[in-house]
Amino acid sequence: MAAGPGGSKLADLLPVAEARARILADLTPVGVEVASLAQAAGRVLAAPALARLDQPPADLSAMDGWAVRAGEGAAERRDAGASAAGQPFAGTVGPGEAVRVFTGSVVPEGADAVLLQEDASPAGERVRFSAMPRPGQHIRRRGQDFRAGVVVLEPGLRLGARAIGLAAAANRAWLSVHRRPRVALLCTGDEIVLPGEDPPPGGIAGSNGPMLAALVAAAGGEPWLLPVVRDEAAAIAAAAREAAGADLLVTTGGVSVGDRDLVRAGLAEGGFALDFWRIAMRPGKPMLHGRIGALPVLGLPGNPVSAFVCAVLFLLPALRKLAGERTTEPAFATAKLGGALPANDHREDYLRARLDRDEAGETIALPFPRQDSAMLTTLAASDGLIQRPSQAGAAQIGDPVRVLRLDLPGW
Amino acid sequence: MAAGPGGSKLADLLPVAEARARILADLTPVGVEVASLAQAAGRVLAAPALARLDQPPADLSAMDGWAVRAGEGAAERRDAGASAAGQPFAGTVGPGEAVRVFTGSVVPEGADAVLLQEDASPAGERVRFSAMPRPGQHIRRRGQDFRAGVVVLEPGLRLGARAIGLAAAANRAWLSVHRRPRVALLCTGDEIVLPGEDPPPGGIAGSNGPMLAALVAAAGGEPWLLPVVRDEAAAIAAAAREAAGADLLVTTGGVSVGDRDLVRAGLAEGGFALDFWRIAMRPGKPMLHGRIGALPVLGLPGNPVSAFVCAVLFLLPALRKLAGERTTEPAFATAKLGGALPANDHREDYLRARLDRDEAGETIALPFPRQDSAMLTTLAASDGLIQRPSQAGAAQIGDPVRVLRLDLPGW
Repeated sequence: MAAGPGGSKLADLLPVAEARARILADLTPVGVEVASLAQAAGRVLAAPALARLDQPPADLSAMDGWAVRAGEGAAERRDAGASAAGQPFAGTVGPGEAVRVFTGSVVPEGADAVLLQEDASPAGERVRFSAMPRPGQHIRRRGQDFRAGVVVLEPGLRLGARAIGLAAAANRAWLSVHRRPRVALLCTGDEIVLPGEDPPPGGIAGSNGPMLAALVAAAGGEPWLLPVVRDEAAAIAAAAREAAGADLLVTTGGVSVGDRDLVRAGLAEGGFALDFWRIAMRPGKPMLHGRIGALPVLGLPGNPVSAFVCAVLFLLPALRKLAGERTTEPAFATAKLGGALPANDHREDYLRARLDRDEAGETIALPFPRQDSAMLTTLAASDGLIQRPSQAGAAQIGDPVRVLRLDLPGW
Repeated sequence: MAAGPGGSKLADLLPVAEARARILADLTPVGVEVASLAQAAGRVLAAPALARLDQPPADLSAMDGWAVRAGEGAAERRDAGASAAGQPFAGTVGPGEAVRVFTGSVVPEGADAVLLQEDASPAGERVRFSAMPRPGQHIRRRGQDFRAGVVVLEPGLRLGARAIGLAAAANRAWLSVHRRPRVALLCTGDEIVLPGEDPPPGGIAGSNGPMLAALVAAAGGEPWLLPVVRDEAAAIAAAAREAAGADLLVTTGGVSVGDRDLVRAGLAEGGFALDFWRIAMRPGKPMLHGRIGALPVLGLPGNPVSAFVCAVLFLLPALRKLAGERTTEPAFATAKLGGALPANDHREDYLRARLDRDEAGETIALPFPRQDSAMLTTLAASDGLIQRPSQAGAAQIGDPVRVLRLDLPGW
């Protein structure tokens, strides 16, 4: 169902969740490549990672001490040698014997417990003990962490440092990961120059391109920042052709009532098929979704605050889906409202807010009094966005609210 | 004050917060370089970023509509032209005149309000209006977001996408940032091979190096993974010399009671000065801090779980300090305990836990029943670490606890 371009009726405004579901349903994960552990960090695993060995590889001592036969109790024993990391004791611990062990060294055959070195008094060839051993004590059993052949990491996982460590421990130097989705960013506007250049009268330095490029890169995508394009359908059409080979084309600007036809007319030359172009949200009502052939297109509003809010609500989930990530939905937290809010209208609202803690450690979300969607300083100073559902009633201080945290690395 | 190496008395165990404070006090931020916006993303700003222009650059329309003189009320007006983005209306809006404006276009001289296009009916050269204008309505005032010359971003800020967008809007193409701190990673152990290689009998694939390298890179540092070094003082000494030029040397392994002398002996050949080597925490008691000349040294435990916990509690704060970041302390959240815990001893405890939400949206922290510090699978599956203070009493389900979230990008 394609929403009509001309209307302004409520029925044309798509709910946020439905818009996101339609965007995601239209996407399939990008292809797979083999990556070293260092390259794989931050990427999404594309195939199960199987352990290539048992971990621990043998029964290992969990402490520095002495490997003994537990059944012999606290009796004095003969020092029969040592089992060091990488140099296991070759023989068997016989009756009345103890073998020196260290954290991580193999517990030799015959022994079934480790006594702590602080409970041991070596004297010549003899060792006296002041504690009773329990069978299995201070021993890490072979395969206790994982067995060779088991799946230690599931596909769809975004690989952080701990997952990389686990893959390394499983003796895997290479992992199959999805390649980074290529996101072409096309910013339109006669009034826009690149930062550092001289804007025309009344013009501005374009912030959407660098901002979205940084966001895409931080989210594991490969941003592809196209030159700024004038408000002309032919120029937009030419730029859109340059995006061939991308996994997603993101435009900014040119989709509100006054100028929507520009971006759509430009995309139309490449055979653009519209899905929808308006969402029941604030900021960010005019947001375009469709395709040029196989290339999915997201058209974000030109206003930088609206563009950023739409990016975290729609572009990042799309990027996660393209990257093969299991979890695509934005993660909301709960907070207590720090300032009263009036009832909301039919548009789902995202209010910039500071997050703080009360004495009990609970998160307080304090909305900025001025929500003007042109204020980038307010966006940059925000710790989160308070979500106000469509038709929400007036809210009081202390009411629970859902918050999308913005104080994340890279955001 | 250097703690004695031989003792095992409680007094030798440094509290976590004190250990971190001593590590941080010993560090100064690394040098500064100039970076493009794309390079600057994820880095720490080293000098105030000043706006190079007013934003908005002039009084701009916040909507699509007509610029009018508010004092004339809802009267019909003459269509005097248009002010488009990048092509402002050249003249002045005279009495009885209206000028077509679009979101972001300059409100021409003479006009002091914008009437929405949905309230306007153009007919030939005339425009009728069905709404009353208020002075200032739908106008974004020049400099309302920021004025030329003001500081839009303060030094010490880790630059995310929103900050990059703000810098771009301020017309800054270059930012002064701290260079990435170089962190040399030296993993020791006769039993360790690089992932993919064949471990010796009872040996393992080393996970600390790849894990910490990924963590350092995700945190904005430049990891420098040295070859794995045998448990020999001379080999460790040679490797430590290779770390010359790093901003921080991190070792793993060789600092517990059984083998501490190895790393310390190796470092000593380069003139290592010890600050402390034991912390009152679990996991991770044996942790070394000191210097080789100007090079700060952190010696993490060899156990991967202990190494990771020490990395988030000490290495990442150190990295933030080196990178010039304003905020260095770990960020704790509050959660409700999901399972009872016994009283704690003198060591501050960090328990791996799953985080979930209850029906009210509050975070529940459910500690894993098995906290064996060798279990990397448990670490990888954890969403957070429950902090248990030294000598904390028994805790019941529902009690508030402090949690260090691990479910962060890159971790």
